[in-house]
Amino acid sequence: MSRRERIYLSVEEMPKYWYNVLADLPFQLDPPLNPQTREVLKPEELGAIFPQPLVEQEVTTERFIKIPKKVFDEYAVFRPSPLIRASNLEEYLETPAKIYYKYEGVSPTGSHKTNTSIPQAYYNMISGTKTLVTETGAGQWGTALSYAGLKFGLNIEVYMVKTSFEQKPMRKLIINFFGGKVSPSPSLNTEFGKKMLDIDRENPGSLGIAISEALEEVFKKDNAKYALGSVLNHVLLHQTIIGLEIKKQFEKINIKPDVIIGCHGGGSNLGGTILPFIPEKLSGEKIEFLACEPKSCPTLTEGEYRYDNGDTAGLTPLMMMYTLGKEFIPPKIHAGGLRYHGSAPIIAKLKHENMLNAIALDQEETFEAARIFSKLEGIIPAPESSHAIAGAIREAIKAKENKEEKVIVFTLSGHGLLDLTAYA
Amino acid sequence: MSRRERIYLSVEEMPKYWYNVLADLPFQLDPPLNPQTREVLKPEELGAIFPQPLVEQEVTTERFIKIPKKVFDEYAVFRPSPLIRASNLEEYLETPAKIYYKYEGVSPTGSHKTNTSIPQAYYNMISGTKTLVTETGAGQWGTALSYAGLKFGLNIEVYMVKTSFEQKPMRKLIINFFGGKVSPSPSLNTEFGKKMLDIDRENPGSLGIAISEALEEVFKKDNAKYALGSVLNHVLLHQTIIGLEIKKQFEKINIKPDVIIGCHGGGSNLGGTILPFIPEKLSGEKIEFLACEPKSCPTLTEGEYRYDNGDTAGLTPLMMMYTLGKEFIPPKIHAGGLRYHGSAPIIAKLKHENMLNAIALDQEETFEAARIFSKLEGIIPAPESSHAIAGAIREAIKAKENKEEKVIVFTLSGHGLLDLTAYA
Repeated sequence: MSRRERIYLSVEEMPKYWYNVLADLPFQLDPPLNPQTREVLKPEELGAIFPQPLVEQEVTTERFIKIPKKVFDEYAVFRPSPLIRASNLEEYLETPAKIYYKYEGVSPTGSHKTNTSIPQAYYNMISGTKTLVTETGAGQWGTALSYAGLKFGLNIEVYMVKTSFEQKPMRKLIINFFGGKVSPSPSLNTEFGKKMLDIDRENPGSLGIAISEALEEVFKKDNAKYALGSVLNHVLLHQTIIGLEIKKQFEKINIKPDVIIGCHGGGSNLGGTILPFIPEKLSGEKIEFLACEPKSCPTLTEGEYRYDNGDTAGLTPLMMMYTLGKEFIPPKIHAGGLRYHGSAPIIAKLKHENMLNAIALDQEETFEAARIFSKLEGIIPAPESSHAIAGAIREAIKAKENKEEKVIVFTLSGHGLLDLTAYA
Repeated sequence: MSRRERIYLSVEEMPKYWYNVLADLPFQLDPPLNPQTREVLKPEELGAIFPQPLVEQEVTTERFIKIPKKVFDEYAVFRPSPLIRASNLEEYLETPAKIYYKYEGVSPTGSHKTNTSIPQAYYNMISGTKTLVTETGAGQWGTALSYAGLKFGLNIEVYMVKTSFEQKPMRKLIINFFGGKVSPSPSLNTEFGKKMLDIDRENPGSLGIAISEALEEVFKKDNAKYALGSVLNHVLLHQTIIGLEIKKQFEKINIKPDVIIGCHGGGSNLGGTILPFIPEKLSGEKIEFLACEPKSCPTLTEGEYRYDNGDTAGLTPLMMMYTLGKEFIPPKIHAGGLRYHGSAPIIAKLKHENMLNAIALDQEETFEAARIFSKLEGIIPAPESSHAIAGAIREAIKAKENKEEKVIVFTLSGHGLLDLTAYA
């Protein structure tokens, strides 16, 4: 076996179904509630902002959902993504552990976000949507949705957290390159944005605020729907393509992972990575899941487990999750994509049921991880993804101390080429 | 065979030797001349600016040069690079041609330039060099050399053409991220830079000027050498890894290319792509080579074939090449990497001997090619590489008109994520 092992799958080997963990979880998720009445939300209420097929995917308990042919063909432009052994990193750490990473930066927009932007744009297209409105933190999601919108002929409007908008000028360029429109949030386009700016003209923005603005925009427009890049069940469903591929790739080399790691913002790349391994865990296999989040936005490690809105204005349904409070405005940290007050209900429940561990890492440790990784492995990671690298390094050092030949795998959710200003 | 065919090689299959076309050319290259005496340059004169192993590679006629183990290991961090069938592009063009592209954007710095920056840094390191000084146009080369310098512990100083420096702020960030130092050229660091700025304070710079500044810097410093990212024989030699891999990849699927295409600036990615196929061409196989250059810097299509300096100040040896004249200051076009007044002597000779065709493409056609390619193939190409795409599109349309099932391959020398401002 080569030291620079890279495990590829052919397009024929790419999974043809997404995996729906709701079919297998040994517990029920607490249902989303109507934010006004606090009554259990009816699926049709979601229909105001999402197209029917996505509403169905949000609640179904069917185990496997077929990937539509047009979505499969668009996945095939860049997927399957490679699983790569980080041999140089292993050597540098002098660890007996084997470290693998699933590299999602091969996507057209450089992150895992296209895995869900493509099906979301597709289902909106077949449902007659003309305009998709969304928010974006670091810009990865807005970029991915613009690319998908171009594919399926939708107008894309993006509210981008103002700090990130200013820190990352390239993001605007690439969103425009794909034909999308982007405004810094809070903006003067919406009543809620104006209100926020009235209170504090220097408001740096947050995902919660941007979601509120996007929703307000959806309600104003004809044939407009909303798209969310993380948190929801259907988003995590689409992202399971990551973990399903990882499984196949490990089968090819006859290895089983012991620790599976992802960075955690809203939970989509983490969920996509670990959920396909839930059946193994439930069947008693010794397999650990680790969420890595920033110390400055420690949702899973320090948040409360309770119902909260997904946005700041309180327009979204109430969801049961770990939350720092919907008014939480995270500091201007660099991993803009991880600055979210809440978490995916599925991820929150797994954490609450002790099926998932979470750690919080500070900026210094993650930056150092990014620096080492860039030098050794030749990829500049996205600041978000660096949290997963830092987590993997901690696990590899632990394995060294305990003299354990563990197999560690993490998802490198994207490259950092469009976010270099964050490292400057 | 899948429509989204991607041909991978394992690290074990990566070529272990570079191919030196000087062993096989049926004609002699005209030798470089001393710029003062106009006498044939002695190899030892090159020793003032290049380390001994590179001087030897510049003149050797040995057919295969072994890739040193440390260089091979660093190549293996990202190589072999994939050969990808552009199925969506074929379908869009309704061409009977098969279009493949060799994707060099998987390199750590996003272009083919690391193929030579790594061996150049390596040979300098083993020869005792402490500082490597260079110039860069669009920034690809300066970035690649900084990465390689970090690997082998060298200080890297880069003179970057001022227009590009201003258009591409990300380049400075990434060069600094890898520990390199970069100055816009013309600069006040050197006498020649000062002279240029005295004449015209608004001088936008050119590769020729930047080379002059870099050379002046080398002569001032102890243990400093110069590194060139294109033009020279040893640079093209290192780049043959591209074409050697392409050959192996086509052998795997039992196909032979009919037309091989590269964009042309100084000639390194074009040379690296086509030179390994020269033996086939000499043995009578029907195989065409096509150089694609910008209309605004039409070296091969409109330049004169004569001796000229590689730089503006006239410090470099005189080389026999197509040239627009060393004082040529190209307009501020976007493909900064292609704005060079001269060409590689090997490429120039092939063109002069009618073994290579060249076409010049305008900005509109190449930008449109980039836009279509991004949408269909999910990769935003570097502005330089877009010239090769535009050339491939022309060939595919010709094949359609002639109803020929040609196999077209081009090198996509890099992605454009760090150069988005050029498209703005």
